[in-house]
Parts: sequence; structure tokens; C-alpha cells
Amino acid sequence: MNQKKNVTFNDIAKYTNFSKTTISRYFNNPDSLTLENQEIIAKALVDLDYKENKVARILASGKTEFVGIIIPNLFLHYYSEVLNQILSTYETFGYKFLVFVGNGQEETERRYIDELLAYKIEGLIILSHTIPSRELSELGIPIVTIEREDRYVSSVNTDNYMGGCQAAGLLARHDCEVIIHINYVNTSDYKYIPGYGRVQGFLDFCKEHQLEHELILRDMGNTYDSLRLHLSEILDYIIEKYAGQRKGLFISNDTQANVVLNLLIRKYGCLPDDFFLIGFDNSSISEEAVIPISTIGQQIDKLAYGAVELLVEQMNERKKRSPQPLKNPVHRVVPPILFRRETTEK
Amino acid sequence: MNQKKNVTFNDIAKYTNFSKTTISRYFNNPDSLTLENQEIIAKALVDLDYKENKVARILASGKTEFVGIIIPNLFLHYYSEVLNQILSTYETFGYKFLVFVGNGQEETERRYIDELLAYKIEGLIILSHTIPSRELSELGIPIVTIEREDRYVSSVNTDNYMGGCQAAGLLARHDCEVIIHINYVNTSDYKYIPGYGRVQGFLDFCKEHQLEHELILRDMGNTYDSLRLHLSEILDYIIEKYAGQRKGLFISNDTQANVVLNLLIRKYGCLPDDFFLIGFDNSSISEEAVIPISTIGQQIDKLAYGAVELLVEQMNERKKRSPQPLKNPVHRVVPPILFRRETTEK
Repeated sequence: MNQKKNVTFNDIAKYTNFSKTTISRYFNNPDSLTLENQEIIAKALVDLDYKENKVARILASGKTEFVGIIIPNLFLHYYSEVLNQILSTYETFGYKFLVFVGNGQEETERRYIDELLAYKIEGLIILSHTIPSRELSELGIPIVTIEREDRYVSSVNTDNYMGGCQAAGLLARHDCEVIIHINYVNTSDYKYIPGYGRVQGFLDFCKEHQLEHELILRDMGNTYDSLRLHLSEILDYIIEKYAGQRKGLFISNDTQANVVLNLLIRKYGCLPDDFFLIGFDNSSISEEAVIPISTIGQQIDKLAYGAVELLVEQMNERKKRSPQPLKNPVHRVVPPILFRRETTEK
Repeated sequence: MNQKKNVTFNDIAKYTNFSKTTISRYFNNPDSLTLENQEIIAKALVDLDYKENKVARILASGKTEFVGIIIPNLFLHYYSEVLNQILSTYETFGYKFLVFVGNGQEETERRYIDELLAYKIEGLIILSHTIPSRELSELGIPIVTIEREDRYVSSVNTDNYMGGCQAAGLLARHDCEVIIHINYVNTSDYKYIPGYGRVQGFLDFCKEHQLEHELILRDMGNTYDSLRLHLSEILDYIIEKYAGQRKGLFISNDTQANVVLNLLIRKYGCLPDDFFLIGFDNSSISEEAVIPISTIGQQIDKLAYGAVELLVEQMNERKKRSPQPLKNPVHRVVPPILFRRETTEK
């Protein structure tokens, strides 16, 4: 393996016949040089194959250009798609992302965040539900959350309430005799997470339109096998209780909707005429399913871009001579989009 | 947002009544202090809520504890699972990962790698196919690749040749009259990527056992829609050409195997008796499919752990007083595991 010798300011000064001070000004305040001289130095950097030592500049400027991302898991398709979209903002904003996947290891997650702070990262994007927003707000760096409890920090969320109404509305328009919402509960503060808006929107819409409905909330664990087990039990219950009725199922995410769809196809060889399904997220599995699944689409690109943009605003503010910290957290909302596919449009 | 005042060596010295030199020795050469004094300082750090400024230490030690990961996309389930496994080695090795998803943007990928080098990352794990291994070997830092062209750099790969033999063998044992391998080609050097071993293993096994077989190689693009389009054409061709024959399909990854399975179920309402399918990877979609898909499982945990371990060895070597760089790249191989599921065991 070659080990390249580092090119120093001295080398650049010699090569260009400028003073070291001029070279230093080029890096720290280029507009103080003429355009012509800037070009001479820029060309020299290419000739000399200069690689900037950013670590030294971080110490001087406090700008690491690093942002941490904490994701609960990569098992739900939704999270790997959010991650993909956040990472792709590199082209726009230039921030590099340090990624951590919690997988339920609370202690490791706290230790990781502590380490990132020691490395002077500039901000954090948090999707995991582990640490309460009050505690996050005390970390002293810009933080934006996506779709998690966010009372004390800025956030970008889907308009889940509108999504719940849209889902119930679509099932109602298909004359379902009963509309059932299946959602999972695995945090004690589930009523404070943005996703709970789906439940509220669903309930309000059903009550307002006097629709026969049922809400099934259950902790279904964190593995695919435990999901399938719970959803299989729930489906057996629905099939028995609502036999002969036209059933509309609004399922809280596409990964789960796909499990329910597959259970039905395995049992009946097709999606029975009296079943209408709609998921949430518009993640890839909703299109890759054996029958494309109708879904309330989260605009994942807008959520991710919005979160990075909001974070960049706060990070830039902190670099000003007299920064004005946010008085209150900012909460941005992205509207969902209804995708009608074959599990409702038969 | 609170902004915590940084605790300095001065503060710690005052608090403990030690000299600043002693405090500095605690951080840089703790064993030069008595255990008792180490404990006094350790306790003071907790009392003072000291947060180490690692950036300053990086300058001194050259150790950033950062590793870059370059992934081609998060659209194939395989990649998000490899990423998950690599990130989870944080608990074991303590390295933090800067993640970049190429999504085919070659220029951005090169710029990103340049930036990471400027930040003095310690090593790189590369899964993307964009940059030839000869060029990577000249970057001057430890690099390990996973399942990509690796002539000039160290790597950890699945034993793809064995996988190809296993797949053909399983289909042969089910008395398939023709065995067909569908693979995609989207790089000009595809014969040098480890995955090509699947093709060679398949061909050698079929020839040795004088099995009727066909190899279908095609560039199928990078989106789900283009995958489905190409696989649908290929399936129509197979159905017509081999009508009435017992067909074994070995498909190059589970994402594609799932597309083929769904196309068959859409067409026939079930997996027809004369079709046997096996995928590759054992990624989540193979279990989440409407009929669980038989697959040649890559041991993704072992691949990821092996890659990080190999990288850590090389990074540690470079920290020694007189490092011995590798004379030749090291190539580790992980055996695949056959998963028999319902698409073959009917």
C-alpha cells in the first residue's frame, strides 16, 4: 500500500512563489486574494496532489461537517428508505453521516451519542424512540427527529392524522361494513408519538361518519416471526367475528400489511372479495408484494430532505457571531399521499 | 437549548489538586499514575460532567476511529442487511461508520472518498462496484471489500462457486428436466466479481452431471420496475420454450426470485407443480414472500464481522512503531448455507 507524503503549506508556497501567509489566506479567506492568484494556487494544489487535512481545520473552525443518525432498525423497509434519502442529501448539503442502528440496545445507543458529542459532530437526526425528547433537548446540539416523540425538540413528521382519515375514507367509499385499524404499541408513551395521529384520524373519521369500526392495538414484538404470529391470531379473530361481512383493514405499516396479505393468499389462494386492505408508508414492499398493496404514502424524500434542511438551518445559526437559539422547537408536517392499488381497487 | 461549558484540564486540576501535567498524563499514559490517582481523576471527570474533545486527540494520535462504508444502494435487501451487520460491530470494535450510498453517482462517490481521506478516516469497507480495486489499492489506507471485484485489495466473500453447485444440486435432486440460471450483468468486468462464481459453479455442476441446462445473463437495470419487466420477459420465454417440462430456476438473488414467484402466482394462482425456484442471499424478502423461498444463504453476519475484523487488523498494524504492510491482499471466504423452503420442497 502506498503511503502518500502529505503536501504542506510550505510545499505549496515554494511551488507558487507565494508566501505561506498567502497560502493560508487562500484556505481561510480566499476572497482576500485576486481571482488570478486564487487560480494559480488552485492549479498548484492539483499539480501537487494536495490532500487537505480537515481535522486540523475542524479544530480551528469547530465545523466537523458530521451529522449523527440514530435509526431503530433496518428491518422495517421504512427505515432503510429514510436512511437512503437522508444519505443522498450529501450532494446538496455536503454533510457526512455517522450512522448507528439501535436494535433495542438502549445503553449502547446512549454511549454512541456520548461518543459522537466528544467528536464534535454538528447535529443529530433521530428516528429511534429510546431517549425521551426532553433528555435530547439537553444535549446542547441541534437535533431534528422524524416520526417519534418530539415535544422538546424540532421534528419533521408526516401528517398522520390526515393519513388515518384518508385510509378510513377509502375503505368507507368501498362500502365496507366494518372498518378495522390494526396498530402496534411498543412504547409506553405511544400516545405522544406522531404515528398515533393515524389512530386518532381513523377514530374521528369513523365516529363522524357513524361507521362500524374496531381498533386493535397490540405489542407485536420486533421480529418478523413475532409479527406474523400476532397478525395471524388477529386475522383469525377478524375472520370469525366478521364472517360474511365486507371488511376494510387499515394496517399501520406496509411490512405488516404484506404479512396480512400473504396470510390471506395462503389461506384462500387469492385476496377474498370481502377483504379490502390498505397499509401505510408506501415502502418498497407495498409494490413488491404479490398483489400491489394500497397505501397511505409517506413522502420519505420530503421528510428526509426537510429534516436535513431544518438541521442545517440550526447548525448554520450556531456558526454566527451571535447565534439566536430557537426559542421553541419547530415542527414541520408533510402531507401523505394516497396510493390506490389492487388490494382495494378490485 | 443549553450549551454546556466545556470542562478543561485546568478545571480538573483545580478540582483534584493535581497538576495539569498529571491530568494530561492520565489521558495520554494513564499507567504512569498510581491506580489510586487514576480513580480520583476518573471520579472527578464524572463529577464535572467532563466531555472529552476527541478531535484534539485525533490530531495527536492520528486515530479517528472512523471507518467509511460505500454501499451501491439500499434498494436490494442484501445491502441494507450487510449495512445493519457492519454497523452492529460498533459494540465489539468501537469504530464509528460514515456511510455513503452511491446510487450509481460515480463522481459523487469519488468526491466522497476524497473527503473522507481528508478527514483522516482509518479505513474503508467497500461494496460498490464503481471504482476498480487497483485504484482503491492506491488510496493508501486499509481497505476491505465485500462481494465485488477485489484483485488488488483484501476482501471477504461468500463461496459463490459452492453456492452455484448447491443450487444446481438441489434442483437436480428434485428431478428437474431442465435447470436454468438467471443472472444479471451490469458491469463490464462481471467475470471478475465474486458473484460470477455462482455462474461457474452452476455450469460446472450441470456439465459434470450431464444435466440439461440454460444460462440467461442480462442487464436488468437498477429499478424494481425494470427488474420486473425483464424477468417477466424471461419467464414468458421459459414457459414457452420448456412447456410441459419440469423446470428448476436458480435466480441470482432473493429480490429477483420474489419477483419471479409473484409473476407465477399472479399468472397461475399458485406456484405450478412444474416450477422449482431457488434464490440467493437469504435476505428478509425470501422469508416474507407469499411462499417462503428456498435460497442459498449468505452468512451476512459472518461476512460483515469478517470484513470489520480484517480491517481492524490492518488498521492496528498501521499504528505500530514499524508497521508491516500486507505484501499481498488477503481474501477470506465464508461458506454459504442451503435453506430449503416451500418453493422447492412441495
